[in-house]
Amino acid sequence: MTATSTTKATPAISGGVTAPQGFRAAGVSAGIKQGGTRPDSSTGQTAGPLDLALLVSDTPATAAAMFTVNKAQAAPVLVSREHLARSGGVARAIIVNSGCANACTGDEGMAVARDMAAETARLMACPEEQVLVASTGVIGVALPIGKIRSGLPSAVAALGNDQGPQAARAIMTTDPFPKEAAARITIDGRDVAFGGMAKGSGMIEPMMATMLGFITTDASVPLPLLQRGLREAVNKTFNAITVDGECSTNDSVMLLANGRSGAVIGEANYGQFVDALSGVCLELALGIVRGGEGATKLVTVVVTGAASDSDARRAAKAIANSLLVKTAIHGGDPNWGRLIAVAGRAGVDFDLNHAVVTIGSVVLFDHGRPHDERAPDAATYLKGKDLTISVDLGAGGFATTVWTCDLSAEYVRINADYRT
Amino acid sequence: MTATSTTKATPAISGGVTAPQGFRAAGVSAGIKQGGTRPDSSTGQTAGPLDLALLVSDTPATAAAMFTVNKAQAAPVLVSREHLARSGGVARAIIVNSGCANACTGDEGMAVARDMAAETARLMACPEEQVLVASTGVIGVALPIGKIRSGLPSAVAALGNDQGPQAARAIMTTDPFPKEAAARITIDGRDVAFGGMAKGSGMIEPMMATMLGFITTDASVPLPLLQRGLREAVNKTFNAITVDGECSTNDSVMLLANGRSGAVIGEANYGQFVDALSGVCLELALGIVRGGEGATKLVTVVVTGAASDSDARRAAKAIANSLLVKTAIHGGDPNWGRLIAVAGRAGVDFDLNHAVVTIGSVVLFDHGRPHDERAPDAATYLKGKDLTISVDLGAGGFATTVWTCDLSAEYVRINADYRT
Repeated sequence: MTATSTTKATPAISGGVTAPQGFRAAGVSAGIKQGGTRPDSSTGQTAGPLDLALLVSDTPATAAAMFTVNKAQAAPVLVSREHLARSGGVARAIIVNSGCANACTGDEGMAVARDMAAETARLMACPEEQVLVASTGVIGVALPIGKIRSGLPSAVAALGNDQGPQAARAIMTTDPFPKEAAARITIDGRDVAFGGMAKGSGMIEPMMATMLGFITTDASVPLPLLQRGLREAVNKTFNAITVDGECSTNDSVMLLANGRSGAVIGEANYGQFVDALSGVCLELALGIVRGGEGATKLVTVVVTGAASDSDARRAAKAIANSLLVKTAIHGGDPNWGRLIAVAGRAGVDFDLNHAVVTIGSVVLFDHGRPHDERAPDAATYLKGKDLTISVDLGAGGFATTVWTCDLSAEYVRINADYRT
Repeated sequence: MTATSTTKATPAISGGVTAPQGFRAAGVSAGIKQGGTRPDSSTGQTAGPLDLALLVSDTPATAAAMFTVNKAQAAPVLVSREHLARSGGVARAIIVNSGCANACTGDEGMAVARDMAAETARLMACPEEQVLVASTGVIGVALPIGKIRSGLPSAVAALGNDQGPQAARAIMTTDPFPKEAAARITIDGRDVAFGGMAKGSGMIEPMMATMLGFITTDASVPLPLLQRGLREAVNKTFNAITVDGECSTNDSVMLLANGRSGAVIGEANYGQFVDALSGVCLELALGIVRGGEGATKLVTVVVTGAASDSDARRAAKAIANSLLVKTAIHGGDPNWGRLIAVAGRAGVDFDLNHAVVTIGSVVLFDHGRPHDERAPDAATYLKGKDLTISVDLGAGGFATTVWTCDLSAEYVRINADYRT
């Protein structure tokens, strides 16, 4: 292991979670989603919407995960935490269903999540605790374990090292498109691949959308480094996006490293590893924002001049979640006043006389005064679909970036019109 | 002063800020709002939308105020703070304009706010520091001091003890209706009156709406008690409402007590005083929520079972500001899952197994499980316009109440379509 390896990202590689060596996946229909039908037991063929995804590593992989901080944690989150603890961070498979979140389902829900893992373990001939579980969809509705049991064999039968895209489709709820990413770097002369899939926040499904992310790599990574790398990557990607400021009961990001490339990650090449991992996470995270409910624009919010890292994050999140900012961007309105007002009320150090508001590259406010004569240029810029809004708090040297989308009347329609 | 006085609220009394003895008010058009014209100098008649309000106490009143915590504070806020400090909490007059917030206007804005106060003081023959100033409307636009100067004499001429309603109209921006309240209680055998007016969050005006509240009473109240009473009343009324979670650059609530009733407030009758003051503040605050942008329903959010007072407030505000909750209520969807999920992510102590979600009087979730069979009853209840949503966090004995409105597509239209 040396530090002389070079980074050679190949963003064009495809295959999502099955891009790295030694990973297979499947996406099938188990009849959980409304309109879905169970697989035909005679033919093994599936029909209806995909709603069951299986991801397996051919050999036991080192596994790290981050879960929702919501105190109402869904059964699959609790079971996956428990399995990671029991296995000491080793996993062979991840079983995921869409169409039902198995959240707020009490003891029965816990039993169902355990059953899902146990049945998968039986079919994969691995210990139960080497199976992680994730669910997304309706809150408070029982997950029909019978459908999972019936669907699992066809999922196992469908496993393939080219089936990442099918798995990415099977974890979608109301996502407008599947979200996949992959990258390849060279570490110590060996090709190392990363793959990922995610689902985002659609909300036509009854209760609560969920952010799920699954990342694979064929690097060999000691558990502490894998956990640290995932935390670093997630904090600046998945944890730096917002659609509506909500954190679901089921949010999970899981990372499996199976070592099949032969490349071993240590402190010396850790930076390279995290950069590539972060790149995959960012691509998935931005896909979630672009596919946010009613979203028409991807907005990069840059906060500079903060007195601390946490101030930067807090101000950026306040801006990214402000209804007034999000509606102004939706309307193409270069409304620097709303940005100043949100920065001022974000509970962070802020100096009005040194604050700067920039939309695209147009400075609309600095030295305590507006430049409204530049508003037309900013308005032209805001007609675009991929926008950057920058606020300098004038209070220090810290900076951060978060991503959000605009707020449209479509968001209200999607979320208000359910059940009516 | 005895503690034997009885409370006899007379909510039917009218007159707003001029209900108490010794207060006069006026609302005139000074041509600040677009479409407004200056008063005709020969006739003193005003035309166009009202945009200048003057409130005076015939004798110097004890004055307390609370201002926005936004760090981008508008010039009138800074000048009023300074005047209260210099006068030691004494005021004769409050001058308020709508149509321009005089915020983010630099040194020129400060000069204009000072001029407004100085000119009012000259006309009322009182020290400058006994005049408080408030502005609401567009951020970042110069307030035309010439129009204020021309308008002030007609405001003075129009002053009357029956002109509270005109003043309440003159402080409106895009408010759908004026907000006034008054109450009368008996303290130590003397009739004590309270009056108030407020403006809320309309947002068709360019940048940022502002919450302004002005309360009068003819009780005699020592400054420390007046300040304490205002803080108590505001915290459970104006500070317990939210339309879109934004805190403006100009928010101000001012309270004048001129002692004309002869009743003197001390520790013994302080409770009575605060109750009546809070009643007036609550009526004004609920008017602001009912008149919130795009609002179609007034929602009372009750949080119980919190581990602390701050947990209760934090959870209630998180629920009241949740887009998912506000859109569900707009759509009449008894979506207990969103309430559980928001309570769980609010950063407060929360126990899913002891949490209870109640919509109206329908318990939809308790003991860790939903009661979806009751959803139709809750849906029927949600067709109403005045709703109560209760969440017990299952974590302690603290409780609080906040008020919000639903989120409609009209909100997005109002705030996105400006300048387009």
